[in-house]
Amino acid sequence: MPRGPLMIIGGAEDKLRRPTILKHFVAAAGGENARIAVIPTASSLGPEVVEVYDALFRKLGAADVVAVRPETREDSHDPDLARRLTEATGIFMTGGNQLKLSAIISGTPLADALVTANEAGTVIAGTSAGASIQSSHMVAFGGPGSTPKQRMTQVAAGLGLLQSSVIDQHFDQRNRYGRLLMIVSQSPQLLGIGVDEDTAAVVEVEDGHEIMSVVGKGAVAIFDPSRIVTNAYEAKRSSPLLASGVVLHVLPQGSRFDLSTRTLLPHVPAVDPGEAAEMAEAGRDLRQLARDIAADGVSPTNLRRRIARTTRRKSATTTAPDPDGASA
Amino acid sequence: MPRGPLMIIGGAEDKLRRPTILKHFVAAAGGENARIAVIPTASSLGPEVVEVYDALFRKLGAADVVAVRPETREDSHDPDLARRLTEATGIFMTGGNQLKLSAIISGTPLADALVTANEAGTVIAGTSAGASIQSSHMVAFGGPGSTPKQRMTQVAAGLGLLQSSVIDQHFDQRNRYGRLLMIVSQSPQLLGIGVDEDTAAVVEVEDGHEIMSVVGKGAVAIFDPSRIVTNAYEAKRSSPLLASGVVLHVLPQGSRFDLSTRTLLPHVPAVDPGEAAEMAEAGRDLRQLARDIAADGVSPTNLRRRIARTTRRKSATTTAPDPDGASA
Repeated sequence: MPRGPLMIIGGAEDKLRRPTILKHFVAAAGGENARIAVIPTASSLGPEVVEVYDALFRKLGAADVVAVRPETREDSHDPDLARRLTEATGIFMTGGNQLKLSAIISGTPLADALVTANEAGTVIAGTSAGASIQSSHMVAFGGPGSTPKQRMTQVAAGLGLLQSSVIDQHFDQRNRYGRLLMIVSQSPQLLGIGVDEDTAAVVEVEDGHEIMSVVGKGAVAIFDPSRIVTNAYEAKRSSPLLASGVVLHVLPQGSRFDLSTRTLLPHVPAVDPGEAAEMAEAGRDLRQLARDIAADGVSPTNLRRRIARTTRRKSATTTAPDPDGASA
Repeated sequence: MPRGPLMIIGGAEDKLRRPTILKHFVAAAGGENARIAVIPTASSLGPEVVEVYDALFRKLGAADVVAVRPETREDSHDPDLARRLTEATGIFMTGGNQLKLSAIISGTPLADALVTANEAGTVIAGTSAGASIQSSHMVAFGGPGSTPKQRMTQVAAGLGLLQSSVIDQHFDQRNRYGRLLMIVSQSPQLLGIGVDEDTAAVVEVEDGHEIMSVVGKGAVAIFDPSRIVTNAYEAKRSSPLLASGVVLHVLPQGSRFDLSTRTLLPHVPAVDPGEAAEMAEAGRDLRQLARDIAADGVSPTNLRRRIARTTRRKSATTTAPDPDGASA
């Protein structure tokens, strides 16, 4: 069995109107055969957070939903909780405080069971705090702002489901370019991954490469600092950092990115339906014309008339361009 | 006479406590010989905006300050106003609404006089609206947000003092990564330049290259879209854009960047004063040791003792690391 997918969700995923991301998760967990374990430990809310996800996942067709809620490191040594992860076909970590989640599960048999389940094929999803904890290096705290400043954020250790990376969330909505740039400036061996709200980075292994695809309403921003020039080792407290040569990829839904080679996979351009209809029509006209010519050997005068007629008909039937399209 | 410098100020420059940027401008305009023309046309304020800059520039040592305030395109044909620009040693454009400034001066003899003055050596500075109008392509409107979205901003024509570029301001403070990324995605021949508040990009021509240096408290962000892959030509209204492979440079005070080759100029690393003092002390000790050895041919035992003594003395006198430094 290949390793299971990771779903790294930027928080505030749509739960009712268009639950694209949660649907994707239930499908990846086996659809009507899905047995989902919810880990709500990051959350400061009570049982209601489990009740919400329980209702949502069942509504989206999952067969079973169980809670796995350690509240102490002692709880995370309970073999019964670990067994629930092992038996699940999908594991979902809620939002909240990623340091709380990490403080309670990291380095325990429960975290080992989660990593082992993923290696055996189980899809792991997490939103907000549950997204950040998936990377090897985890954003712990930090303020907003586009410009990276010394010490504007701190790093702790994550679960390492995604190695050599640091994941940030609510990325557009909370203006977190600066803090992710600060981290990759100080740790240029990491890839920075910033996920917008109601958006997921889905990572799957294909031919030994980690391939990320984007699902949802926003975008995933990737910072590749391989060739960075920085003064992060000497800049004073709170001063802006030099971060020159960072390669930025902003990836909306449908984009595919090879995390192993750090390159965009070929983009399939959209086809304008109006233009496609026009070309199809023109193709039919020309084929008809060719058949006519082959059948009765038209004179040059008749040929000119037919081409003129074809052109007139074409412009009369051309579909108007999509009013929402980029060009007129 | 070489072309004059451009000072592209991101708005909200410090005027009283540490007026680094305004000082830099007065010095570039000739210091005590400076004759400064202030263009407040972008501003919605009355005479007080001129009064403030008049008082500031005189306090910083300028010999003379005159207002050049066209309020209609007709005014911008007044030869007397143009003459004030020609006679100035520095021209300063205030903040406000860059479309208003552009609507009143672009394509008039006044704008020609400004461009000609810069070509003849006059420094041109502008803050906020007065910064944006300096580029060939000018941000006209637009909302905040880190993720570029289709149609989140519009472009109008700027004065073109800086060709092949688009300048944005209040860059960190108003979260304008998204709108500048949208513009360079649609116009990958432009270089995107985002300037933080109380920060200036100073552009001067050296050996035929436009060299930008950074002055002030924040940073200047450069987006180089030379190798961008984008769907900006087909993305639907308000959806996030694909913008993959944009090279980002975040440049704090002291950075120098070649706009012509789009490369960072060599960075001079800061010297830690504690480390420098330790090395100087060690150097003195070792030179003394060498003199002693040369003078009386010490025995191996004495030599070992002296080295041990030197090492002890060195660790006792090592300066503690700077408490504000990056490392402990």
